[in-house]
Amino acid sequence: MTSPGSDRTEKQDHLSADGESLSAYMQRQAARVEAAFDRLFPAHWVMPDRLREAMRYSLDAGGKRMRPILVMAAAEAFGGDAEAALPVACAVELVHTYSLIHDDLPAMDNDDFRRGKPTNHRVFGEAMAILAGDGLLTHAFHMIADSGLPADRALAIVRELSEYAGPRGMVGGQAADIMGEQGVTGLAELEYIHLHKTSDLIVFSLRAGARVAGADEAGLAAVSKFGENIGLAFQIQDDVLDVIGQESKLGKATQSDIKGMKVTYPFFIGVERSIEKVRMLTEEGKKVLLSGHVPHPGRLLELADYLMRRDH
Amino acid sequence: MTSPGSDRTEKQDHLSADGESLSAYMQRQAARVEAAFDRLFPAHWVMPDRLREAMRYSLDAGGKRMRPILVMAAAEAFGGDAEAALPVACAVELVHTYSLIHDDLPAMDNDDFRRGKPTNHRVFGEAMAILAGDGLLTHAFHMIADSGLPADRALAIVRELSEYAGPRGMVGGQAADIMGEQGVTGLAELEYIHLHKTSDLIVFSLRAGARVAGADEAGLAAVSKFGENIGLAFQIQDDVLDVIGQESKLGKATQSDIKGMKVTYPFFIGVERSIEKVRMLTEEGKKVLLSGHVPHPGRLLELADYLMRRDH
Repeated sequence: MTSPGSDRTEKQDHLSADGESLSAYMQRQAARVEAAFDRLFPAHWVMPDRLREAMRYSLDAGGKRMRPILVMAAAEAFGGDAEAALPVACAVELVHTYSLIHDDLPAMDNDDFRRGKPTNHRVFGEAMAILAGDGLLTHAFHMIADSGLPADRALAIVRELSEYAGPRGMVGGQAADIMGEQGVTGLAELEYIHLHKTSDLIVFSLRAGARVAGADEAGLAAVSKFGENIGLAFQIQDDVLDVIGQESKLGKATQSDIKGMKVTYPFFIGVERSIEKVRMLTEEGKKVLLSGHVPHPGRLLELADYLMRRDH
Repeated sequence: MTSPGSDRTEKQDHLSADGESLSAYMQRQAARVEAAFDRLFPAHWVMPDRLREAMRYSLDAGGKRMRPILVMAAAEAFGGDAEAALPVACAVELVHTYSLIHDDLPAMDNDDFRRGKPTNHRVFGEAMAILAGDGLLTHAFHMIADSGLPADRALAIVRELSEYAGPRGMVGGQAADIMGEQGVTGLAELEYIHLHKTSDLIVFSLRAGARVAGADEAGLAAVSKFGENIGLAFQIQDDVLDVIGQESKLGKATQSDIKGMKVTYPFFIGVERSIEKVRMLTEEGKKVLLSGHVPHPGRLLELADYLMRRDH
């Protein structure tokens, strides 16, 4: 629990990972998740082709697969197996993807492009995009129920997904966000939005991975605190990148939030202090991981640093 | 298993229900579900008021609470307790309500009124309506996970809800429906749409109630077949009512499907044959219930008759 002890833990995990670099690790885990999308639905399931295409289109639109990677890394941090966590990892990506499809809709953020590709409703129409989102969200729960995990463990994960992704979680954050666009927003409200719109699914990912590996309450509390911190850091970083980033780097229109009159962290406290806050949140998050309740925190520590540095 | 035996079972159940009429039974169970909506979310859950209002608005918009009643009646049909089935019964109503909110959206059916009240998006705006639907769907899984049922039983119900409400179930039916509006539809396609858009959630309701009460596979198969039949009958009845019904009776614009160029059963086989099909499907469904695998089928038989007769 002391600093030297913490350093030893970190170093030890680096070695235990057989010297695989973080980027190689991330690519390997992302490939695993993407391969699993090919067997997303049981073979005998009949459904309209167009719906299947619409769901698959957005799942295949890429990204770093950060949330599934966090699920698997968290399982490993508690001595568990990434393979056992794979169905839950995929479920999180389904939920994340549904939220992007619905967020992009004309009635919401009205985005035409995401990661350089036309958004779902631009390709499949609004009605099918709404249904593709509904289908992905619903199927996420099937993946957990069908994960092969012990029933009590799977059910606890279902319960938390519905909590962190639902009205008091991600959906609540999104609701606060659209209301914020219509008028007043203060820093406290902005933090509420970020915590729920972004952190909640990250916290869920870490807790679910930890649960797969049978983590105890102290372990779950540690990854929760870690997740809240890096989730908020992640989102503030997003705000910062939106202000100073270049269009080519992110593949989406920069300063779109400013154009759309969305208030961000840099709006309230400036870019410099925002960058400093990202650094502090990340450090605090890492410190919790090194409290002694997470047996193998190495990859999670690396991932925290990675998130803080991305696209800089 | 013979006809006389079946009659005895039906009569016996009538008596065991203390002579309570079907309409009194339905009112009592509906009131139970509606009372449960007051404690829908754990007290410490913080969420935007407007989101809470939007979800509650559509939950409170009424209806017969047919699906929750089917959950509780199915539990009782297997000797179970309606109270134990209540969380699952509420969950089904949440899913049904979410599907109505999303179906009514401008991009989908573009309905301004439902049961005489302005639709969700007309009151709260499209963005909030989408989120209210998302929130209700997500929270339905929480209600099941939090139901107090044994973990393996609750997980089996989660698994089936995600299947019957998801891409191969209700969402698939809805997707086929919006594609049908854009062009060709045959009777087979229409049956696919009805079976999934309507029957699947009814079948789920019956199976979930049966599962709460510990029904075996033969019992589950019996209520599934019953549910498919009365679900399809229910939808064909809807089509018929839409053609011959009166606006005042249903509280929504009649012939709206015809105006919207939607094809229906009467369109293909005429009103008379449609009415006959409703009767035949109902009778076949009732016959399966009397096969000996459902210990106390009385209320379910009454509900099947009620559904066939409604609004005539």
